[in-house]
Amino acid sequence: MNHSTTKVGSETSEPLRYISKAEAEAIESELLKEYRFGPQQLIEIWGHACAIAITKAYPLSSMGRKQPTVLVVCGPDQNGCIGLVCARHLRMFEYEPTIYYPKRSSNGLHQDFTVQCEKMDIPFLSYLPTEVQLINDAYHLVIDAILGLEADPANVKEPYAGMLVTLKQVKIPIVSVDVPSGWDVDEASTEGINPEVLISLTAPKKCAASFTGKHFLGGRYLPYDIQKKYDLNLPEYPGTDCLIEL
Amino acid sequence: MNHSTTKVGSETSEPLRYISKAEAEAIESELLKEYRFGPQQLIEIWGHACAIAITKAYPLSSMGRKQPTVLVVCGPDQNGCIGLVCARHLRMFEYEPTIYYPKRSSNGLHQDFTVQCEKMDIPFLSYLPTEVQLINDAYHLVIDAILGLEADPANVKEPYAGMLVTLKQVKIPIVSVDVPSGWDVDEASTEGINPEVLISLTAPKKCAASFTGKHFLGGRYLPYDIQKKYDLNLPEYPGTDCLIEL
Repeated sequence: MNHSTTKVGSETSEPLRYISKAEAEAIESELLKEYRFGPQQLIEIWGHACAIAITKAYPLSSMGRKQPTVLVVCGPDQNGCIGLVCARHLRMFEYEPTIYYPKRSSNGLHQDFTVQCEKMDIPFLSYLPTEVQLINDAYHLVIDAILGLEADPANVKEPYAGMLVTLKQVKIPIVSVDVPSGWDVDEASTEGINPEVLISLTAPKKCAASFTGKHFLGGRYLPYDIQKKYDLNLPEYPGTDCLIEL
Repeated sequence: MNHSTTKVGSETSEPLRYISKAEAEAIESELLKEYRFGPQQLIEIWGHACAIAITKAYPLSSMGRKQPTVLVVCGPDQNGCIGLVCARHLRMFEYEPTIYYPKRSSNGLHQDFTVQCEKMDIPFLSYLPTEVQLINDAYHLVIDAILGLEADPANVKEPYAGMLVTLKQVKIPIVSVDVPSGWDVDEASTEGINPEVLISLTAPKKCAASFTGKHFLGGRYLPYDIQKKYDLNLPEYPGTDCLIEL
């Protein structure tokens, strides 16, 4: 066995690297095509990591006597699907997620993840209140699983543009999945929503370099050779944890 | 929201139920058809739970200065596939798994899980040594992911019958996945291999009722309504753990 490639994190003192959109896409493509990971498998892993991060940032015990309500806002593509899986795991962790998923994907895999949530009696909202106070009062936090890596922040269409206007005004904490919605993947954002928590998946993106909130990385599954090929310099995950706070 | 169905484990003091093969198959069928879970998703969840159980039963620190070698023996069907996923996660937890997978499935999904292990440089043995001492010396433990729920213990074919003869003689601990190979799912076994650890998936099977070794249950993902429908009386999982020691 060749063990020279096995402990990338511990053998280097190089700093963690923040990757570009192109690199993130290349890694995902390599996972799918070379390593033959499946989208269903990866989305399950990512959504689970997001739910664990939320339990760390906002434990049930921190929510006092009120019901541990969480609004999970899901976009049309893969990021939204990660939100669905996150909601399902939050339900198993005894949170009370509610999903807002305005444009359902026609992709069969995404539909399967939707059915899993519906069958578990997780409520789906038919519209997002424009009266921000209603959101502040009804939920402890909002999960932003809207646009993610795929979207073009210069060309955010409806209903997402309007949703971002609403989310910029909410007073409850926002947790963003991988890339805060409306941010450019490759640049720090001064506009856009302002999450309190960011959950980077696989490796942090360039836009996260100046993020000052609570920052988690969920990427324990990533094969060592890919970590090395892209010089990710990932930190060592503690124990069997699927994520780490940076 | 209807919360009457949400905390099955905590609302009952009924004992954990050990389910039959027919019930286990009915639950799996319901997960796949009604809840639209995917096989890839379930196998990933199960294999991950197995790897976590192994880290709890045999932590790296318990293996002294020797390399933390684990022999993962994989059967031809779903149980073998769970073994492949378990091996992959063990690798990420810095164990050194070696896989013996004598009859590779022609199922594309199973092949994908195989490629993931190969690409991560996990070695595959081309044969199982019949000289038991070689196995005892080379590995700390053996993972039995051979026959599982699907197989008919009264009709174990080669190469598995021969492999079970070998595994009955090894002196290192055996960890069985879901159902110890060669056991009847519905009855306690007096013959067959004698695992030190059993990892039940979803719910424990009837054959596990008299098992006296270390017994883990990995089934945190199981929707509450299914738990209730089958009167499983599952214990409450601690924190966000995906498994519990019974």
